[in-house]
Amino acid sequence: MSSAVVEEKETGRIEAFSDGVFAIAITLLILELKVPHLPAGAPGGALAAALIEQWPSYLALVTSFFAILIMWANHHMMFGLIRRVNAPFLYANGLLLFVVTVVPFPTALLAEYFEKPAASVAAAVYGGTFVVGALAYNLVWRTAIAGRRLLRSDVSEERIDKLTRSYRVGVPLYLVATAGAFVHPAITVAICTSLSVNCIATSNRT
Amino acid sequence: MSSAVVEEKETGRIEAFSDGVFAIAITLLILELKVPHLPAGAPGGALAAALIEQWPSYLALVTSFFAILIMWANHHMMFGLIRRVNAPFLYANGLLLFVVTVVPFPTALLAEYFEKPAASVAAAVYGGTFVVGALAYNLVWRTAIAGRRLLRSDVSEERIDKLTRSYRVGVPLYLVATAGAFVHPAITVAICTSLSVNCIATSNRT
Amino acid sequence: MSSAVVEEKETGRIEAFSDGVFAIAITLLILELKVPHLPAGAPGGALAAALIEQWPSYLALVTSFFAILIMWANHHMMFGLIRRVNAPFLYANGLLLFVVTVVPFPTALLAEYFEKPAASVAAAVYGGTFVVGALAYNLVWRTAIAGRRLLRSDVSEERIDKLTRSYRVGVPLYLVATAGAFVHPAITVAICTSLSVNCIATSNRT
Amino acid sequence: MSSAVVEEKETGRIEAFSDGVFAIAITLLILELKVPHLPAGAPGGALAAALIEQWPSYLALVTSFFAILIMWANHHMMFGLIRRVNAPFLYANGLLLFVVTVVPFPTALLAEYFEKPAASVAAAVYGGTFVVGALAYNLVWRTAIAGRRLLRSDVSEERIDKLTRSYRVGVPLYLVATAGAFVHPAITVAICTSLSVNCIATSNRT
Repeated sequence: MSSAVVEEKETGRIEAFSDGVFAIAITLLILELKVPHLPAGAPGGALAAALIEQWPSYLALVTSFFAILIMWANHHMMFGLIRRVNAPFLYANGLLLFVVTVVPFPTALLAEYFEKPAASVAAAVYGGTFVVGALAYNLVWRTAIAGRRLLRSDVSEERIDKLTRSYRVGVPLYLVATAGAFVHPAITVAICTSLSVNCIATSNRT
Repeated sequence: MSSAVVEEKETGRIEAFSDGVFAIAITLLILELKVPHLPAGAPGGALAAALIEQWPSYLALVTSFFAILIMWANHHMMFGLIRRVNAPFLYANGLLLFVVTVVPFPTALLAEYFEKPAASVAAAVYGGTFVVGALAYNLVWRTAIAGRRLLRSDVSEERIDKLTRSYRVGVPLYLVATAGAFVHPAITVAICTSLSVNCIATSNRT
Repeated sequence: MSSAVVEEKETGRIEAFSDGVFAIAITLLILELKVPHLPAGAPGGALAAALIEQWPSYLALVTSFFAILIMWANHHMMFGLIRRVNAPFLYANGLLLFVVTVVPFPTALLAEYFEKPAASVAAAVYGGTFVVGALAYNLVWRTAIAGRRLLRSDVSEERIDKLTRSYRVGVPLYLVATAGAFVHPAITVAICTSLSVNCIATSNRT
Repeated sequence: MSSAVVEEKETGRIEAFSDGVFAIAITLLILELKVPHLPAGAPGGALAAALIEQWPSYLALVTSFFAILIMWANHHMMFGLIRRVNAPFLYANGLLLFVVTVVPFPTALLAEYFEKPAASVAAAVYGGTFVVGALAYNLVWRTAIAGRRLLRSDVSEERIDKLTRSYRVGVPLYLVATAGAFVHPAITVAICTSLSVNCIATSNRT
């Protein structure tokens, strides 16, 4: 078997494992959504009201779903530039996957406390998770470009620099989202959502 | 690596990710089925009765399982016509996957309230989920055929038109299923089930 | 792209989806194992005793894990003989996957009631699940061999007949395991376990 | 289809199934992390305190996540040396996957009891799980190298011996971690963590 095939296979398996983790984490989000338990004789209106009252759960679910989807799309795009993996890259990727698997927890936390006095702490934990996620992304990317050994040879220096700059922007933006939690928890959600919308809109334009 | 290979690989990874989400969502359905907790000395008859009493859970489980399976089979068939993906397609597919991951929630809701006064609201939420799912399917398909750039070149205009018409039918049918909930919740389940049975029967005939 | 490649890809995706369902169902089994909740000051001996008292859960977990693993290994082997899939095969396979996703429920039921008076009902449900699983296997296999259109051309009639006979045996054996539950629930577990052990031993010999 | 392709495909599917189990087990760890339920009017400080009080859960989560990640990386590396699979290998691999799926349970046990009197029992169960995991790894490896039939022909005797020695070391080290639980549960966690860190550091150096 030629060396090129071995390399490609190796990238393939780390991609498959990462895809699995992304797919499971994004699907587990729904487990945090609880069916409201009402007294046996409760009328339809009471169920409708109980479902509507859970709106912070839906908001948190949608925000986290699209945040993970975008992380997956970025991961997918980044791996398109990579021709082989080494151990530091594998573990940097592992750290990123750790953050991805963690997302359902701050999502449930935000949903539970969004309308309570402790909302700012919950929102700060939520924002902080994405700060760590953005840092992990930068670590994975820096490991990938270190010495250019892992990248495909046809990736230009210009493209690398552009991606390095775009990944670097994520950290301060999510830090602002986290700090904003102490002004109002909605600020965290608004920034996270608009970052996602902006990311989708930008990628749809190019 | 030739451009054709890159394209195929990209379709492959979005398929693998989608397969993961479908597979997880369809398997998570079982988590909504709870083991009945009876007093320690309860006889076998009491357990049998408690298991039989859960029949709306089994009905909801089977209905949702085959609904997701059919969505997967359609997705599988649609991707057989596609040779490359772009960002709008990726996010339209993401929206469809969102609906797929959500299905366990209305399923649990329907199971919990099917024999209670709030059943019509639960059934309407259940039907409504599939309305959104049908809309997402149409969006994915429209994104795929926009400008014909994502489709394989050997897909005829005739086939495209036939599929466009068949996807369009889903939305009004599921809307009827949703509205029917307010007459009787069994109407929603009956329509959803017969749509699935019809879909399986049709595809088995061709 | 040649027709052979398309066919292989199609088999590949139904395999990937099935693998996902098998992998998730086998991993979800652990969620039925609950950490014992003891009073805060409980000593180590009390925790050890509580863990030992859960032995029916471990037994059910191990039995179901290896039952699903063997179903996967058989599925893997069967797909090695298949070169293309059609709609009836896809839905027969879907029915089999349904049984696979259901397994965590009778497993939890058996674990909960194994030492209680209702044990025979729980064990009968457990055994019955595998009866349905064995029936689904036969349906998948019959769909695969119908008209020989889905099989690889190098699969001999002899091999087909041998497999048909071996799949047919599963149904009566699991029926005996189910009926045995009403004599003693341990009979069901013993038969299921020895069927698995026998299956592993046989395949290791050849 | 040439025999080489069939063999490779077979290895591919057992890899895909194993990847699925690893990916799901590593992602399910988060389900053991519970959102603290506080009275409705609890201030942010109370939530922060409740989150900090859960530190053994985070410690257990991180330790188990990286332990599974390393098991996956080793599995990935080992499969790179294998060109075909047989039944004994498939079931030895199944035993290893069983331990992987089990990990969320001792993780939750350790998190629940780490600061309670029963901590040493919980830590011993945790360490013991990895002893069994290390034994399973040795079994998989021994099955792979038996008669050299499953290995790629370009794997040198020297490399095989080196790997055999390195896998053998895991068992006594995890036994020490398990026994250490009865001195202090932190010893188990410290040894498990340093084994992981050492493993990552070593692989990053080579």
